[in-house]
Amino acid sequence: RARKPLQAGSLLVDKGNYRHYMAKEIHEQPEVVGRALAHYLDLAKGTVRLPFELPFDPKALTRVTISACGTAFYAGVVARYWLERFARLPVDIDIASEFRYREAPLAEGGLMIVVSQSGETADTLAALRYAKAEGQHVLAIVNVDTSTIARESEIAAPILAGPEIGVASTKAFTCQLAVFACLALALGRARGVLSEAQEKALVAELIATPALMAQALKNEARVEPLARDVARASSALYLGRGPAYPLALEGALKLKELSYIHAEGYAAGELKHGPIALIDYAMPVIVLAPHDASLEKTVSNLQEVAARGGHLILIGPESARKAAAADLAGFLEMPEEAAGAFAALVYAIPAQLLAYHVAVFMGKDVDQPRNLAKSVTVE
Amino acid sequence: RARKPLQAGSLLVDKGNYRHYMAKEIHEQPEVVGRALAHYLDLAKGTVRLPFELPFDPKALTRVTISACGTAFYAGVVARYWLERFARLPVDIDIASEFRYREAPLAEGGLMIVVSQSGETADTLAALRYAKAEGQHVLAIVNVDTSTIARESEIAAPILAGPEIGVASTKAFTCQLAVFACLALALGRARGVLSEAQEKALVAELIATPALMAQALKNEARVEPLARDVARASSALYLGRGPAYPLALEGALKLKELSYIHAEGYAAGELKHGPIALIDYAMPVIVLAPHDASLEKTVSNLQEVAARGGHLILIGPESARKAAAADLAGFLEMPEEAAGAFAALVYAIPAQLLAYHVAVFMGKDVDQPRNLAKSVTVE
Repeated sequence: RARKPLQAGSLLVDKGNYRHYMAKEIHEQPEVVGRALAHYLDLAKGTVRLPFELPFDPKALTRVTISACGTAFYAGVVARYWLERFARLPVDIDIASEFRYREAPLAEGGLMIVVSQSGETADTLAALRYAKAEGQHVLAIVNVDTSTIARESEIAAPILAGPEIGVASTKAFTCQLAVFACLALALGRARGVLSEAQEKALVAELIATPALMAQALKNEARVEPLARDVARASSALYLGRGPAYPLALEGALKLKELSYIHAEGYAAGELKHGPIALIDYAMPVIVLAPHDASLEKTVSNLQEVAARGGHLILIGPESARKAAAADLAGFLEMPEEAAGAFAALVYAIPAQLLAYHVAVFMGKDVDQPRNLAKSVTVE
Repeated sequence: RARKPLQAGSLLVDKGNYRHYMAKEIHEQPEVVGRALAHYLDLAKGTVRLPFELPFDPKALTRVTISACGTAFYAGVVARYWLERFARLPVDIDIASEFRYREAPLAEGGLMIVVSQSGETADTLAALRYAKAEGQHVLAIVNVDTSTIARESEIAAPILAGPEIGVASTKAFTCQLAVFACLALALGRARGVLSEAQEKALVAELIATPALMAQALKNEARVEPLARDVARASSALYLGRGPAYPLALEGALKLKELSYIHAEGYAAGELKHGPIALIDYAMPVIVLAPHDASLEKTVSNLQEVAARGGHLILIGPESARKAAAADLAGFLEMPEEAAGAFAALVYAIPAQLLAYHVAVFMGKDVDQPRNLAKSVTVE
């Protein structure tokens, strides 16, 4: 591919009516995710339509490897659930800085997916090069299509998020998820795992997602009191199950990055294997609980926290609050409809808004948190 | 297998001259790990000798799946590096509470390894049953050989740690590692990946490990001042690369469990993708740095923390301290020889000792931390 000059994008982008780039980018998400979906779906037919040919036979695939860093890695962890469920493809996922040195054995002709907003992440690029040398097909999910990672990959799948200026990634994350979702459905169809009817039902769910994201954004005023509460803490836990588990990781990462509060994401089922010892009256425990098949189990973890006097904040629909029947320090209501396979796209919003408002309330530099760079081009 | 009555073991075990069961169990490790190794090695020939037949052809294996909870899960994450490197087997590993609901696609006739000290962990048992239903061969690495998990598995590989009374797992962890190490070497030999000479060299390294563990235990007096320092913190990070990454996770888990300090383990390469924002003068950053191929990269992460005025504690050999050339708040010297593939067994010791002494100094109930149960038999 020919090298194109870098876009001067970042200098031309303004904050509009927002106080920070991050606020603008959070609010742009229904629009940019919609745009990304339109690029990967045939909206007229209600089916998937990848904007590129796959250079391999999806039926012959035995395994997918995903590697990335930070927020992009968590997008991959969400995608693992989708690729396994919709395409019945086993997924091996690892942090790029670990994967590149592991010398992982890879199946001949396998598929490697790397994810990077900037397309310049050093460890992710090294993981890509390792996979290529091992004979893998490489697909990159990137925002900057002139980047090194895009150029060195067999397929560069654009996320079309537009320039992301805030150092903490927001819209790039949900656009990465949108692309992954379409890819999982396309692979599922090509592999004969999904019927046409299933594809259409799932595409309809995907198309409904931007509106649910917009609905979640309308909750912003209710996030502020929760944020003032969380800002008093020095430490916090985020819990989730299934695709809400990587969202717990991402929510915690956002809070770390912006407010310097030590937040950690945990699979809710792991709570009893250690972190429950941390529970006291002071540490917020933020539970992400869409109304899916795992709600009952998540609620039971929530109740264990409640029984130990924990400081619970529930992010979920009214039905989850009812099922919890526990004493909550905070509740952020989410649409009941954000309950299907793609709820992760909707639940990303409250996680981002919470971290944003905590940081604003604490007077932190939201768009340029201390010690962080937008693109990590060193190892 | 016939059901045997449960051992009355725990009632018959005393603390000897130790203040806590946990202290006794930490100090038993060179002995019990040596015993476990003797069970899986032919010490006369210096080769591996599994005490059971494998009910499948190791050459036909295409993938191994590992599932467990808590500390046993981290033992699996260490083993992933070994199984990939020594047996060139791709490893898929997941927390049992996630794996069991993921409906992961599994290769026909594949190998599932579950790990549980008690053999009664509910989520791990459910993961085992899922894998069996999907036609997997199931090998369980367990301490209690009369347990449900041992009985329901095709092969129960005992870790021979003896009764573990302290709620926070210590000797079970290193014995699990010992069994995993032998298994990886046995599979590597059977698959023709390791030569006889390589096997012997690695077995010699393994046999040298208990003595290195004993050497690490001799450092205990030097752990106490570090523990008093860490006890002042409300939050801590543990960093490592390669097999030292899961050790960072395990070290952080131990500190959480015993002292209720919010410690989190991170792959050192992920530092710049978020957690570096947390670095300040107060939060201890504990770096596990055996002198292996990744030392240079780990040292560069350490220096990034130093450049931001972070509170660094280095656990590594003198050569790592020299390479770091940074202002350290603490240094715990480890034997230079604990640098090979099995360094994880040796580095588990300082991680355990540090958590133990922090908790003792803070007056916490070391053997029975709040909110925790020894065996998690509910979901």
